[in-house]
Amino acid sequence: MTPRETSSTSHPDIRAVRERELTDRVVRSFSATTDPRVRELMGALVRHLHAFLREVRLTEPEWQRAIEFLTDVGHLTDEHRQEFVLLSDVLGASMQTITVNDPAAAGADEPGEVTATEATVLGPFFVEGSPRVALGADLAGSAPGEPCWVEGTVTDTAGAPVPGARIEVWEADESGRYDVQYPDGRVAGRAHLFTDEDGGYRFWALTPTPYPIPHDGPVGALLAATGRSPMRAAHLHFMVDAEGFHRLVTHIFVRGDELLGDDAVFGVRESLVKTFERQPSDAATPDGRALGGRAWSRVRFDILLARGDE
Amino acid sequence: MTPRETSSTSHPDIRAVRERELTDRVVRSFSATTDPRVRELMGALVRHLHAFLREVRLTEPEWQRAIEFLTDVGHLTDEHRQEFVLLSDVLGASMQTITVNDPAAAGADEPGEVTATEATVLGPFFVEGSPRVALGADLAGSAPGEPCWVEGTVTDTAGAPVPGARIEVWEADESGRYDVQYPDGRVAGRAHLFTDEDGGYRFWALTPTPYPIPHDGPVGALLAATGRSPMRAAHLHFMVDAEGFHRLVTHIFVRGDELLGDDAVFGVRESLVKTFERQPSDAATPDGRALGGRAWSRVRFDILLARGDE
Repeated sequence: MTPRETSSTSHPDIRAVRERELTDRVVRSFSATTDPRVRELMGALVRHLHAFLREVRLTEPEWQRAIEFLTDVGHLTDEHRQEFVLLSDVLGASMQTITVNDPAAAGADEPGEVTATEATVLGPFFVEGSPRVALGADLAGSAPGEPCWVEGTVTDTAGAPVPGARIEVWEADESGRYDVQYPDGRVAGRAHLFTDEDGGYRFWALTPTPYPIPHDGPVGALLAATGRSPMRAAHLHFMVDAEGFHRLVTHIFVRGDELLGDDAVFGVRESLVKTFERQPSDAATPDGRALGGRAWSRVRFDILLARGDE
Repeated sequence: MTPRETSSTSHPDIRAVRERELTDRVVRSFSATTDPRVRELMGALVRHLHAFLREVRLTEPEWQRAIEFLTDVGHLTDEHRQEFVLLSDVLGASMQTITVNDPAAAGADEPGEVTATEATVLGPFFVEGSPRVALGADLAGSAPGEPCWVEGTVTDTAGAPVPGARIEVWEADESGRYDVQYPDGRVAGRAHLFTDEDGGYRFWALTPTPYPIPHDGPVGALLAATGRSPMRAAHLHFMVDAEGFHRLVTHIFVRGDELLGDDAVFGVRESLVKTFERQPSDAATPDGRALGGRAWSRVRFDILLARGDE
């Protein structure tokens, strides 16, 4: 037996009591917190953090490695790269937070209603200030890729249309990069528009393609060390806002994508997987747009918003 | 009732199942990890992190605030300031890691032996490369403060002397700052020395004084928001290494210090509180050193090392 095993089998109670007393003392140190929610959060954080340390018997070199890892994550993070969000994403913490808060996660509230559209992760590539475009416009702009016609309606969970809903859309181009990942300041594959009086919307974008999350930093090293892929299933981001409804942040995914079961950030929900119908280059486009002989795709995404004031 | 309460009381099972399934999926994503310890650590981290998120029902604005907080901690951290270590310290995570690993935390292993000296936090101010000084030297150097004579022995837990043990000592000056907190590159209040053939040691240092941990950053803001003091109980740092023994990282504290029950990093152990005997300015010093009419103090600290190879 190692010395540690000798110690813990001889005197398990002394050690366990000291560990528990320490946790209790730290939780009590937050008892003067004025804001009751902050007090609750800090107390729970300490209890769960200490439970982790005690369960795994974290060694001091492992603690040191954790400090170094967080330091590296912090140093890589700047206005263009949010490595802490990536870390939260690959640990499923972002998706768990979304699940905890998603009005759709509990199913329909009332008889005769259906479940609201499910939420998924925001991701690190949303930026404020996208251009407003008209219904039917092409928001791909200079972003290269296969054209994709996207259409649908925004309704409440009882089926009533939501006119004037703000739909924000953003996506990577066919090389797997968002506009903000290029150094040239381009704005492409990113826009917002508003539903018409029937709650309808339509626009041209790009058929989504899979891409890796940024994996040249400490989060990428973590994925490599744990045999995980950095690839995200192909997707198109939506953020939908309308007065009197919960904000919906979600994606749609591409049926048939091999990565649906292995998304690096655990963002896939079956209800969000849509059929992108591939169209030959000579197929007539819905709005008569000439695509210069390129193949294209089309998808329908009907969005159901949950009532609420968030 | 709010919409959220309606949802969770109507369909608690659907939501709970989705949350649990997500946690399980994330834990499984680490199943291809080659190193079994890394797999264990990542699985446990995910379970405890998700348990926290689910228990407190973390909101998305709170998640965003957490990301911003960690980003601020990362940006303040550099070679001179380790804000992640401070964060670990004020959450008691550093002290819990030490308790989990401390050979002294389980009590004596064998009949006739006594418990090894208890460990406490390393803190952010240890740096490699301190000067070696002779037994009896003054390691305060240019650091201002009241002189303090420190002496004791290093033995094993059966009482046998440990000659040649390396004792590293560091402390803040009377204004509460370590040498590395000054911009002038000074080395003061920091040195290492070796025990003599009887395991004895002695040196001059400074009587420790309380000081705040650095609290002008996000960790300080956290302490302020939770009504906690940034003050550390007065202490003198020790790190003791000898072949065949566990490394001991500890402090000694000053009996009577009002901060003993309220240390910002939870580092105080009763067994580490020592009596610093105040001496009038005309009291003869142990080594005949002339102190220029200043008052001084003296303390004895007998160090017991646990056998082991760390």
